[in-house]
Amino acid sequence: MITGKNYIGNLLSSIGNTTYKTFNPQTNTENGVLFHEASGIEIEQAIELASEAFVTFRDVSGTKKAEFLNEIANEIEGLGDELIKTYCLESGLPEGRAIGERGRTVFQLRSFANLVKEGSWVEATIDTADLNRQPIPKVDIRKMLIPLGPVVVFGASNFPLAYSTAGGDTAAAFAAGCPVIVKSHPMHAGTGELVAFAIIKAASKTGMPNGVFSNLNSSGIEVGAKLVKHSGIKAVGFTGSIRGGRALYDMASQREEPIPVFAEMGSVNPVIILPEAAKSKGAEWAKTYAGSITLGSGQFCTNPGLILGIKGNELINFIEVLSEEIVKIEPTCMLHPNIISAYEIHKAKMLAQKGLQTTATFEKEVPKNYGRQAITTVEGITFLKNTNLHQEVFGPFSMIVQCENVAQLEEIISKLEGQLTGTILGENDEVKKYTKVVSALQNRVGRIIFNGVPTGVEVCAAMVHGGPYPASTDSRFTAVGTESIKRWVRPFSFQSWPNELLPNELKNENPLGISRVVDGKITTHKL
Amino acid sequence: MITGKNYIGNLLSSIGNTTYKTFNPQTNTENGVLFHEASGIEIEQAIELASEAFVTFRDVSGTKKAEFLNEIANEIEGLGDELIKTYCLESGLPEGRAIGERGRTVFQLRSFANLVKEGSWVEATIDTADLNRQPIPKVDIRKMLIPLGPVVVFGASNFPLAYSTAGGDTAAAFAAGCPVIVKSHPMHAGTGELVAFAIIKAASKTGMPNGVFSNLNSSGIEVGAKLVKHSGIKAVGFTGSIRGGRALYDMASQREEPIPVFAEMGSVNPVIILPEAAKSKGAEWAKTYAGSITLGSGQFCTNPGLILGIKGNELINFIEVLSEEIVKIEPTCMLHPNIISAYEIHKAKMLAQKGLQTTATFEKEVPKNYGRQAITTVEGITFLKNTNLHQEVFGPFSMIVQCENVAQLEEIISKLEGQLTGTILGENDEVKKYTKVVSALQNRVGRIIFNGVPTGVEVCAAMVHGGPYPASTDSRFTAVGTESIKRWVRPFSFQSWPNELLPNELKNENPLGISRVVDGKITTHKL
Repeated sequence: MITGKNYIGNLLSSIGNTTYKTFNPQTNTENGVLFHEASGIEIEQAIELASEAFVTFRDVSGTKKAEFLNEIANEIEGLGDELIKTYCLESGLPEGRAIGERGRTVFQLRSFANLVKEGSWVEATIDTADLNRQPIPKVDIRKMLIPLGPVVVFGASNFPLAYSTAGGDTAAAFAAGCPVIVKSHPMHAGTGELVAFAIIKAASKTGMPNGVFSNLNSSGIEVGAKLVKHSGIKAVGFTGSIRGGRALYDMASQREEPIPVFAEMGSVNPVIILPEAAKSKGAEWAKTYAGSITLGSGQFCTNPGLILGIKGNELINFIEVLSEEIVKIEPTCMLHPNIISAYEIHKAKMLAQKGLQTTATFEKEVPKNYGRQAITTVEGITFLKNTNLHQEVFGPFSMIVQCENVAQLEEIISKLEGQLTGTILGENDEVKKYTKVVSALQNRVGRIIFNGVPTGVEVCAAMVHGGPYPASTDSRFTAVGTESIKRWVRPFSFQSWPNELLPNELKNENPLGISRVVDGKITTHKL
Repeated sequence: MITGKNYIGNLLSSIGNTTYKTFNPQTNTENGVLFHEASGIEIEQAIELASEAFVTFRDVSGTKKAEFLNEIANEIEGLGDELIKTYCLESGLPEGRAIGERGRTVFQLRSFANLVKEGSWVEATIDTADLNRQPIPKVDIRKMLIPLGPVVVFGASNFPLAYSTAGGDTAAAFAAGCPVIVKSHPMHAGTGELVAFAIIKAASKTGMPNGVFSNLNSSGIEVGAKLVKHSGIKAVGFTGSIRGGRALYDMASQREEPIPVFAEMGSVNPVIILPEAAKSKGAEWAKTYAGSITLGSGQFCTNPGLILGIKGNELINFIEVLSEEIVKIEPTCMLHPNIISAYEIHKAKMLAQKGLQTTATFEKEVPKNYGRQAITTVEGITFLKNTNLHQEVFGPFSMIVQCENVAQLEEIISKLEGQLTGTILGENDEVKKYTKVVSALQNRVGRIIFNGVPTGVEVCAAMVHGGPYPASTDSRFTAVGTESIKRWVRPFSFQSWPNELLPNELKNENPLGISRVVDGKITTHKL
């Protein structure tokens, strides 16, 4: 049962007076439950509990943290239909998507459980002493990664499960040994409360300290701002708009003690279609991209919003087929009236830009809150001169840039803002002729794709979901995959420390059997 | 021969009108050469050259980068006596220190050469495709670390060689594949120019692109500010004061595209002397610490400025012996009149704090610019209440805090600002009784030392030189040791990329024979 209250550690609490409701975009009506925004006192309580919990949680073994993470996954599955139903009522997304995203969420939790149970992720590095070294003896130094402290995670509007309450950020922070305070996304506060309940239950079952998790409701920006500015918070995870992410980054960097903000923000995910590919597979790619652009109403950070090619009949043909294909697809419901209204405003602003032509737009009647897809095209020189054309239109919208020649294509790529992904559609032999274009693209993105679509972000160790600003606030880290644990840790050295007092990861005996770098060699052996 | 000019790539340049000279603190006179501050035009030229150089330098192989780094080390050694003489004239430091620091500098360069020649540092990670996976096929994803772009390095006043022109920051950035623009430290601009010449010569000998390195002179803050604010610069390295580091951090975080600033700043490096150790080895530790506090006139970021113990005769005895020992040591010359004047001002401010008692100060006549050491003591409750007492006094100064009991000791530690190091002096069995104190200390520092001194920072893979703010601006990275290369790189993914177009680090054949994580297993094998 959803109560509308906050979880301050393991206690439900609702002492604040501000309330709000979630919204069903399919029926265009409010949902029933009244949610209580967290008050200043509740925020302080949650942070105090998290700080206390950190003192013990940071030393919890990998095995125990794995139990906790696996139990969260089990408890989320145990929520059954209520979770799926609530997810759909609060997002307008279909049941299949809800089930798929739940699968991704529990997969992420279990991936992090496996990572910390195995244990080598701490990058244990040992440089042994050399008492005979001249001119001074060499001391014994041992290093490993340790958690930063309490972390604030902001729920994402477009991933009510996989990048919200128990999503990638939270799972990675728990795995690292950091308590988490979630600032629940107001659009799906009920989904958030259900998942929070699952986390609280799992924490209690596996003996985690009270305060290892709190869930705070809020429909405005005050709760998030208070959290980010509080000296008890040591890092922040966010997925959302450039405006929102930058505001949090600014708050965090202006603190007396600045803290890292990992904000995964906007991206138009440029796709380059090379001439040979446009010629031989243009129609095929057009069909594939019609699907990618409209997937989930285009509400993905990896949605292909920008396609670049070199002027010619092949590119014209690609644009024509893409335009035909995209209007065949039935529009779908967007997440919230605010999202569809932002989509319509940004789309209209874009369409008003000089030199932009619309080649396709879905014209038929659609239900309220459904997003009508659109395809536009523009000359390379116009795109170069007007950076307004570089902005993201969050929704089922894409723009094809017709470049004069390879040099112009390269210039455009090199002047693009930072992006999450870049894609090359080309024939194998063809790509070799465009090394400069590929090199320029590599310099602007976090992930580069060959003959595929940017939508679909695999959860694995080799994934980079992040990129040069404004794709993310810190390109040195990924937000997806097991390596995202690195955001919440720092390296720590023990010098000449007694063996029996070292953490297990660094003891001579290597009791955990993890991979370590000992005097420059990777080994699982004891010293 | 020192010209007083800037290196804009491989050309000497002096079009600006502002000039300054370096200073010999031993003779209290200016040195002869006139240095030309870099003008706005020269700054632009250096950045443009660095950006152009990055296009090729980022793809230079590990073997070639190793040649470059080793050649810089050779060229620095080839500078011979002129370098050592200039170093001493510009710093007032003795020849032995100059020779030792040159040794550390070339060791660092060669360590990074070995790291990139071997090649596994890029953390190559491969997740192979699984076309049969349900519900959708798994794509092939391969990740490695790639360089960020042109980096600005600020020379440090207290390390004219090891943390300046070709110091740790520069060596790590070159190793990563980033061009470097050094903002030379005005106190040792001649030493800087000689080393810059060595770098330029090495770059030319090993075929590195022009612009991979520039050296800009300046005695004020404008040149540094212009560099940090420029969109062509992608990261910053700094060693110095909290005020200076924070100013750069603020500039960098307020840019349209914020960039990482790795500033290694202030630290008082708390040392805890436990009762049993004070009893059995108090006099011995006192003598050792008298040496550590005065080493290099206390001008080290790891200088032990704060010693904490529990009230009692043993601690009194420790303070007495330390006070006796420290006045036996002859004061030495500090780096510059500005440094000695800052030392005297901060020391006087500290001595004026209520409740602080001076137990030792060097009273005899000393030459101008020599730093007189001082030892002070204060009650735990006074230290807790007055955070002015927590500030660093850069120089041969230390404060002993007499805590009422273990609880107060723990409270003080937990309320300390972030520190580079923390040290425990204790008998082996004794430490086990102080797990909470040790745990609190661990949470405030980057490196913890058992029965040793914090001065002396080993250059190795397991070293962490950094820590919670304000010890550094980003505790997630170290400034010393081969792992410091991580500051200048970001992870990058290739998805479904043709094998022949992948970088060697990620090709199926593993032509470099590096360690890689393939489907979760560490291996040097080919796929």
